[in-house]
Amino acid sequence: MHDLVHPSLDDIRSAASRIKNYIHETPVLQSEFINELSQSELFFKCENFQKAGAFKSRGAMNAILTLGKEELKQGVATHSSGNHAQALARAAKIAGTKAFIVMPDNAPKVKVAAVEQYHGEIFFCEPTLEARESKLQQVIEQTGATLIHPYNDYRVITGQATACLELNRQTPKLDLVLCPVGGGGLLSGTALALHYLSPKTKLVACEPQGADDAQRSFRSGILVPSINPHTIADGLLTSLGSLTFPIIMKYVHDIITVDDEAIKTAMKYVWERMKIIIEPSAAVPLAVALSGKIDLKGLKVGIIISGGNVDITNLPWKKI
Amino acid sequence: MHDLVHPSLDDIRSAASRIKNYIHETPVLQSEFINELSQSELFFKCENFQKAGAFKSRGAMNAILTLGKEELKQGVATHSSGNHAQALARAAKIAGTKAFIVMPDNAPKVKVAAVEQYHGEIFFCEPTLEARESKLQQVIEQTGATLIHPYNDYRVITGQATACLELNRQTPKLDLVLCPVGGGGLLSGTALALHYLSPKTKLVACEPQGADDAQRSFRSGILVPSINPHTIADGLLTSLGSLTFPIIMKYVHDIITVDDEAIKTAMKYVWERMKIIIEPSAAVPLAVALSGKIDLKGLKVGIIISGGNVDITNLPWKKI
Repeated sequence: MHDLVHPSLDDIRSAASRIKNYIHETPVLQSEFINELSQSELFFKCENFQKAGAFKSRGAMNAILTLGKEELKQGVATHSSGNHAQALARAAKIAGTKAFIVMPDNAPKVKVAAVEQYHGEIFFCEPTLEARESKLQQVIEQTGATLIHPYNDYRVITGQATACLELNRQTPKLDLVLCPVGGGGLLSGTALALHYLSPKTKLVACEPQGADDAQRSFRSGILVPSINPHTIADGLLTSLGSLTFPIIMKYVHDIITVDDEAIKTAMKYVWERMKIIIEPSAAVPLAVALSGKIDLKGLKVGIIISGGNVDITNLPWKKI
Repeated sequence: MHDLVHPSLDDIRSAASRIKNYIHETPVLQSEFINELSQSELFFKCENFQKAGAFKSRGAMNAILTLGKEELKQGVATHSSGNHAQALARAAKIAGTKAFIVMPDNAPKVKVAAVEQYHGEIFFCEPTLEARESKLQQVIEQTGATLIHPYNDYRVITGQATACLELNRQTPKLDLVLCPVGGGGLLSGTALALHYLSPKTKLVACEPQGADDAQRSFRSGILVPSINPHTIADGLLTSLGSLTFPIIMKYVHDIITVDDEAIKTAMKYVWERMKIIIEPSAAVPLAVALSGKIDLKGLKVGIIISGGNVDITNLPWKKI
């Protein structure tokens, strides 16, 4: 693998000013109760309050705003299990163009409905990476749309990096940041932002045990694809990409996994104690924080809450 | 009824400075989507983020902090279906004394657990006002504790008024404020705060149809008790009191009711769109705003979100 030139701090700052008017600066919240539980000071960067309910609005908006007039006319296309789909449909609507979205036919209904609300044109396919990619290829050939990959795209990565740019301004000098990892778009963006702005802050990625391809890739140094992942964290099913993997190898300190029970428990704490709605994928970092797998005692820890798009009529806990 | 001297603006300001270190200044949030739905500009005062999950922490804390040393030693007592109970237990714990709490035996488990967490001593009784009051009388005789009534107490009313004191500073010049009504503690406090600080702002109380005793009292001018109320809004089952009713008669513009379906729909909008957890009682004002029963077009409207204590394992909507 030849050495890639990763996006620079200027690239990230340009992305931030490009998308400024179309996204929220999301708040950083704390919980006394969860601090006590974790014996540390946790700072939750709440991208569940982001436009379209997830950090994905940052990358999608940045990518679309860098397209030329002619490209924009043909529309954009992607495959996504949900949040990138909504974010891209929203960004396309704002930019006055079409979004063609390939979605697995098992995607949560609430995410499908949200894409439709932004007038995204949906093409369903089987829930495998192969089916998604071949369907997407077909759609692009038919429409002439520009592919906006959910994560393996520097325009998307720099967009996602803006969340940590904000976090670092809102809560400087963190000892550690915990960030979920699926395809690695948010993680690699966060890694770059921390590398440039707060190099002493460690970055640990958090992954569901049932989709631990990133951990295996990280530990072996070889990009292992995600095959038949099984986890409640439906936003973290994808494999790392050729652009995200090298950044992660270079700048991430470790990748730690937790099981679905731990993810559900962490999610329930946030709902009950912080009174905010987060999706399972967004609870993975807190699950790691509470797992005892890292010593957090006395540390200032940033937790990236990636999104809040969850079907509230179908929750992962039973009636007491 | 002789003319009562209602709490003054100074009383409310004193309460605010008395409780300052023990409560949150809660944020005011907005939702583009819900603004469009209501054709108005809505400002949600988020007391669901308050300590112990509801505005009740304000009144309970204020009442306890006005007690003398000797009184404090004997502890405090109350009856409450939930949020006042938690708030009083928490306030007593902070003040280093005991809270004796009479609760109906059908109170939500999540609320019972929360009282226990603050070391409140619980006495269960049948879910009728009579049973609650006689049990409370008994407890007070046994313990020598001071009664802190959930709403019919000026110390509590001035404490609850501090929410609107904040709202008025955070979002001045509202055309209208919508506030839920149960026993009227929050409503009468809000009424006084608006009367002193923003007399042009109209105040409309919002009540579940299945517990419409406040509306009937307001319209007849005679305090009608709440008999066999039936509504999902479990925080709004109580009757108005001798101190809250006159303030409401004098300063509230109208009381409007909505049915449980409208309450559930409003609650769902807030959860799905704002990604925050509110309890059914807290959704009543938004349900009124969306009911078409008042013309809100173009108005700036304050919505008091009273609390967020809900059993998330037992939600009022079915699987899609």
